[in-house]
Amino acid sequence: MRDVAVIGVGMTRFGELWDLSLRNMFAEAALAAIDDAGVDHIDSMYVGAMSSGLFVHQEHIASLMADYLGVAGIPSTRVESACASGGLAFRQAVIEVGSGVSEIVLAGGAEKMTDGADVTDALATAADYEYEAFHGITFPGLYAFMANAHMAKYGTTREQLADVAVKNHDHGSMNPKAQFPFKLTREMVMNSTMVAEPLRLLDCSPVTDGAAAVIVTSVEMAEKLGRPIVKVRAFGQATDALALHSRKDPATIPSVGLAAQKAYGMADLTPDQIDTVEVHDCFTIAELIATEELGLVERGRSGEAVSAGETRIGGRIPVNTSGGLKSKGHPVGASGIAQVIEVVDQLRGDAGQRQVEGARIGMTQNMGGSGASCVVHILEGVS
Amino acid sequence: MRDVAVIGVGMTRFGELWDLSLRNMFAEAALAAIDDAGVDHIDSMYVGAMSSGLFVHQEHIASLMADYLGVAGIPSTRVESACASGGLAFRQAVIEVGSGVSEIVLAGGAEKMTDGADVTDALATAADYEYEAFHGITFPGLYAFMANAHMAKYGTTREQLADVAVKNHDHGSMNPKAQFPFKLTREMVMNSTMVAEPLRLLDCSPVTDGAAAVIVTSVEMAEKLGRPIVKVRAFGQATDALALHSRKDPATIPSVGLAAQKAYGMADLTPDQIDTVEVHDCFTIAELIATEELGLVERGRSGEAVSAGETRIGGRIPVNTSGGLKSKGHPVGASGIAQVIEVVDQLRGDAGQRQVEGARIGMTQNMGGSGASCVVHILEGVS
Repeated sequence: MRDVAVIGVGMTRFGELWDLSLRNMFAEAALAAIDDAGVDHIDSMYVGAMSSGLFVHQEHIASLMADYLGVAGIPSTRVESACASGGLAFRQAVIEVGSGVSEIVLAGGAEKMTDGADVTDALATAADYEYEAFHGITFPGLYAFMANAHMAKYGTTREQLADVAVKNHDHGSMNPKAQFPFKLTREMVMNSTMVAEPLRLLDCSPVTDGAAAVIVTSVEMAEKLGRPIVKVRAFGQATDALALHSRKDPATIPSVGLAAQKAYGMADLTPDQIDTVEVHDCFTIAELIATEELGLVERGRSGEAVSAGETRIGGRIPVNTSGGLKSKGHPVGASGIAQVIEVVDQLRGDAGQRQVEGARIGMTQNMGGSGASCVVHILEGVS
Repeated sequence: MRDVAVIGVGMTRFGELWDLSLRNMFAEAALAAIDDAGVDHIDSMYVGAMSSGLFVHQEHIASLMADYLGVAGIPSTRVESACASGGLAFRQAVIEVGSGVSEIVLAGGAEKMTDGADVTDALATAADYEYEAFHGITFPGLYAFMANAHMAKYGTTREQLADVAVKNHDHGSMNPKAQFPFKLTREMVMNSTMVAEPLRLLDCSPVTDGAAAVIVTSVEMAEKLGRPIVKVRAFGQATDALALHSRKDPATIPSVGLAAQKAYGMADLTPDQIDTVEVHDCFTIAELIATEELGLVERGRSGEAVSAGETRIGGRIPVNTSGGLKSKGHPVGASGIAQVIEVVDQLRGDAGQRQVEGARIGMTQNMGGSGASCVVHILEGVS
């Protein structure tokens, strides 16, 4: 596979976007990415979306998005893997360019979640509906199981969970695209409404509308175009049993570790060489487990690490400089692409107040459901 | 991109499969394909499905299918492009193997349509729901527009439409996997219940449960494994405006012509070199227009060609030897893969009573909605 780079990024603000439909959001993000890349066409595109069918009663959206972007005719393919849909759309674009089949490919993601659908039920289709959701458990409950297991096994505390939210809102307060750019205190999190013991409202990522897109091309073409090059060093994808009860240890998310191992192997890098990372913090506990699985903190020590400030901007390994899903928002199909955008911004030195000094290598970790799918990317800023 | 081959195929029977759930169907087809290929593992997989969300209230099915196939851990990605989902899953598998990222990849498709969902409404999400379905038009109506346009422009007759159904049921009567393996007469079609003028019940493909899977690998690996090699000579994918009213001429389906041009170019072949073809006959009119767009018959002459027997087994260019969507059945996400299976069977000489003598090069044409997406593949039997 030839070398591949990201040369353009674009996204809508994240939030309750009453003035934008699914197709309008996607076109806004895609046009911004095309403009940022300075290209005059795209050869092909991928669209990540979890459940346009249940959220807005529309399938076949890859063609719809090409149509409203004004590029109908080109190949356009939707990819779905629940909340990892965006990350997988990016992977497919990287492989298509890497294979030489196409030269300039757009990878985007979008979700319109606030248009009247029963959001909790629609999201529950990312779990094993017949064996989990049908019997009453939805995602806050599944992640609450994981939080309880992590607390029991490693002594992780309620305060440490809260500190994830506090950190991410601190980071998000510097992100003009964030849905909830306000700051939190540990007390605010710990006194917020109980959702599923021990997870409270401010442990949960919000329901969000939004779209994000990036332009992927060969490094050779990127050089010709004279754009700042962020090279895709590696990808790793893994799956696991869909139902949480089919897995051995709910205090772990093995698909994350497996995807990360593949990515580190492909990039020939070790965790200590990563300068900045966006992880899938759909709930505070998810960020803690993810940082362990990625090898960024020792197994069982993620709670201490966040409370010690190790994962803050300025800390040893900044995690979710964008504000993460928690503060920036979580339009499920777009989240994986938005992670790539934050890392690209960091590696280009375009992250403004959120800039991680000297960031050269960044990582994204996007997952679906309670971790039945995960995709990890490693990117490197080379110019 | 390196050369890629299909070395294994498997599918369930198509029909109302009350005894099989979505996951069971997929596993049955996938295990049959793995067995046929004689491989002891797969590296990655793709799952085509149009709307598992609306049909059985389950998203995230690529992980679910990997899980129930007993291979959880490996990358597994769902692809959706309405009724072209299966064909695109195959395209992604071909690119992944072609790029060198993976060596042995399964491409499958499945749809469970008879489990209580409002099928016509769910299928209508493949059209532009806001501008088409919301106002009352569903797929029989859209294809009826196309049929009327073709009849008005080219003098295509009601009898010629019926002859598509008669031919496909003749072919399907020799297919043990077909949902409706009975034969029809022209009179039966023309006297069947009116659905949307001029299309009657027996012009329409049925609602079907089913799954299909193929194993894709490098030609090099196929040779090592000693399997009969069916080489993937080319793929072509194209899109169009999602809404029929946004297109210039409803008597044409430009995405099919565009996808075919790309495929012929990649394979360096012309239409007269194709020995057998599976086209997307969701309605009788769809087969007629598709054969014109693929360059297999002259524009406007497709009706005459079918009535003259040119597209029968034994005719100049056999179309839908499997029985097509019309007789074999149309589990939407699986149909594109089932087309590949029929062509592989033909090129291997495994098609039994349906065998096209001396078939060496075959083609598949799979499309979504009223033609907003199309994917064409050209395969060649080389051993």
